[in-house]
Amino acid sequence: MTRKFNFSAGPAALPDEVLQQAQRDLCDWQGKGLSIMEMSHRSDEFVSVAQQAEQDLRDLMSIPDHYKVLFLQGGASSQFAMLPMNLLRGKQTADYINTGIWSKKAIAEASRYCTVNIAATTEAEHFLRAPTPAEIQLSPDAAYLHYTSNETIGGVEFNYIPDSGSVPLIVDMSSDILSGPIDVSRFGVIYAGAQKNIGPAGLTVVIVREDLLGHTLAGTPTMYDYKVHAEGESMHNTPPTFAWYLSGLVFDWLKRQGGVAAMAEVNQRKAAKLYAAIDRSDFYANPVAIDSRSGMNVPFTLADAALDKLFLQQAEAAGLLNLKGHRSVGGMRASIYNAVPEAAVDALLTFMSEFETQHG
Amino acid sequence: MTRKFNFSAGPAALPDEVLQQAQRDLCDWQGKGLSIMEMSHRSDEFVSVAQQAEQDLRDLMSIPDHYKVLFLQGGASSQFAMLPMNLLRGKQTADYINTGIWSKKAIAEASRYCTVNIAATTEAEHFLRAPTPAEIQLSPDAAYLHYTSNETIGGVEFNYIPDSGSVPLIVDMSSDILSGPIDVSRFGVIYAGAQKNIGPAGLTVVIVREDLLGHTLAGTPTMYDYKVHAEGESMHNTPPTFAWYLSGLVFDWLKRQGGVAAMAEVNQRKAAKLYAAIDRSDFYANPVAIDSRSGMNVPFTLADAALDKLFLQQAEAAGLLNLKGHRSVGGMRASIYNAVPEAAVDALLTFMSEFETQHG
Repeated sequence: MTRKFNFSAGPAALPDEVLQQAQRDLCDWQGKGLSIMEMSHRSDEFVSVAQQAEQDLRDLMSIPDHYKVLFLQGGASSQFAMLPMNLLRGKQTADYINTGIWSKKAIAEASRYCTVNIAATTEAEHFLRAPTPAEIQLSPDAAYLHYTSNETIGGVEFNYIPDSGSVPLIVDMSSDILSGPIDVSRFGVIYAGAQKNIGPAGLTVVIVREDLLGHTLAGTPTMYDYKVHAEGESMHNTPPTFAWYLSGLVFDWLKRQGGVAAMAEVNQRKAAKLYAAIDRSDFYANPVAIDSRSGMNVPFTLADAALDKLFLQQAEAAGLLNLKGHRSVGGMRASIYNAVPEAAVDALLTFMSEFETQHG
Repeated sequence: MTRKFNFSAGPAALPDEVLQQAQRDLCDWQGKGLSIMEMSHRSDEFVSVAQQAEQDLRDLMSIPDHYKVLFLQGGASSQFAMLPMNLLRGKQTADYINTGIWSKKAIAEASRYCTVNIAATTEAEHFLRAPTPAEIQLSPDAAYLHYTSNETIGGVEFNYIPDSGSVPLIVDMSSDILSGPIDVSRFGVIYAGAQKNIGPAGLTVVIVREDLLGHTLAGTPTMYDYKVHAEGESMHNTPPTFAWYLSGLVFDWLKRQGGVAAMAEVNQRKAAKLYAAIDRSDFYANPVAIDSRSGMNVPFTLADAALDKLFLQQAEAAGLLNLKGHRSVGGMRASIYNAVPEAAVDALLTFMSEFETQHG
C-alpha cells in the first residue's frame, strides 16, 4: 500500500492514522464480533462512540453548554432550507453576505422562504476578496445574518467574524471548521458538511444555540426541525453511524495533534509557503486579495492554460492527486485541510518548481 | 478476528465478504493511493463505482428503464415528508394502509401536508396481521396509496402487492427490499433506508417512476424534490459516497449469490425453520397470523418474561448478538436479512432448544 498526497476539495483527505484504525476495526470493532456499521445506533457501544465524538468536538471548539451539537444528514445544501425554516421566527427578511458560489446557493434557497437582503457582496470584483466590516449593511428587520466563512471554490476566506448586531450570526463553515480556534459564542448557528475538514461525506454537523430552537415555519418537514433532532440527540431516526464514528476518530486525532490551535499553526505554515511560491513566480498566479486568501483552498493558474493537462498528469505521476480546479473556474486548486500533511505541501512545491523550470 | 452472528434489526449485518473487501481497500482503493472515502464524488473512479452500483441494483430488481434510481440521504423518515410533497400533484388526499409503527410514522408526517384516508388498518387486532385485499378501501380522490411492505418492529409482512387502482402505489420497503423478486412495474415509488437489507446507515434508495417527477408542493425544499436528484443523478450535492460504494459491494455480492430469487429460497428456509421451532414449543411464541409473518424480522417471546435477560446474556455468550426486541414491544426479535447466513439461524435454533431444555 502506498498512500499518495490528496489535495481533493471534498470528499477530501482523511488522516492516515484514522483510516488505519478504521481498517483494523472494520470487520470486528474492539473484539465485539461485528463492524461498527452493523450495530444498532441505540446500542450501548454505538451510543458511547457517538457521545465521545460529540464531547471531543465540544472540547476542540470550546462549545458552550447552551449550544446543541447535531449530527445530521443532507449536507450543507439541506441546511440552506433548514436555516430559514428554523430561524425566521416570524420575520420576513434575512441578511446574507455574498462571497461566491456557496453563498449564492444559500441565498437562492433562502429566497424561496423569505426576502433576502444582500448585506454585502464583492460580486462586482469577481469575488476576489471578502467584504470589509464597514461594507456590511444590516437591514433593520432581518431575522439573522448569514455568511460563508470560506468559499471552497473561489478560495476566499474571511479573516474576521462579521458583526451581526442584535440578530444571530449564521455561518457555513463547511470548508474551514476546525482549521483554527473560533469563538463559538459569537454565533447562532455554525454548520458544516463533514466531507472537507471533519470526516466522510453523508454527515453534517450543526452547532445551534438553544434559544433558537422550536420556531419552525408552517410546513417544515419534521426532519428539517432542529428541535426534533436536538431532543432526539440526533437519533430521532437512524443517523449515519459510520460517518459519525469516523468523524469521532478524526476528533480524537485532532486532540492528539494538540487541538485546533496547533492545527492552525501548521495550516498557516502550509498556506504561507504555498502562496509565497505562487507569488514569487511569474508562471503561477492566484488572483485573490492577500488578506482574503483561504487557508484551506488555494486555487492557482498556470501562465499558459494549455499546460494544465500536462501539469495534472505529471502531478499525478508524482503522487500528487486531485489538483484540478473546480469545473466552474478551471486551473488548479490545492485543498490543504487539516488531514493534508505539511509534507504534501512540500512535495507540491518541489513539483511546481520543477514543472516551472521545464515549462516556464 | 471472530465474527459473531448478528441479528440486529438495523443498522444490521453485512456480508462477511463485503466487509473484508471494504477493509482491504479502505486506505488504498484499488492501488490508487487513497480511500474511496477521500475521492471526489465527481471523480471518474467514484462515478464508475456509483454507476455500477445502480446498474447492479437495476439488474437485481429488474427495474424498468422508465424508473429513476436515486441514492439519497435522510432515511425513510425524510421520505415520509418527501412523498406527499412530490406526489400529491394538486390533490388533497392520500390513502395509507396502517399496519404498525412504521406505517403510523408515515401517516403522521403525511397528515401535515394532506388529508390521510386510512384505506385499511389492523390496529384493532394489535397489528397482528396484514389486511386482506378485500379490506382495502380506496378513496375516490386520493393521489396515491401507501403501505409498508414489512413492519420491522411488529414482524408483519404483506404476502401480496395491494391493488391501488388507477393511482400510484407507494411502498416503504426498508426492511424487505431485495429479500426476493418483486414486480417493480406495479409501483409508483419504492423507497428503503439502506441500513437493513442494503448497506450502511446514511443512504436511502428511492426508485421512482419518471412521470411522477416535477410536481412538488409550493415550499418544498430543493433537496426534497425528486426531480432535482433525478436530473443530478443523485449528485446535485455531495452524496454519501462510502455508503453508496458499500451498498454497491452488497449488490455485487447478491449477484454472485444468484440474485434475489436465490436469496428468497434461503430466506424462506431460514424463516420457516425459525417459525417452526417457535410454533413447536410451548416456551417460545410468536403472535402474528401465519400468512402475515415477516420473512425478515421474527419477534418472539419467552413463556416467562423474567427469563428474557438471562436469554439475552447467554445468547450473547454463545455468539448470538442483538436478539433483544424493540423497546416498544419487548421480548426478542431475530432479524434474518440477506446478510444473516443460514448457519446463524441454525446456531440460534440450537441455542433456543438448549435454553428451553434448561429453563422450560
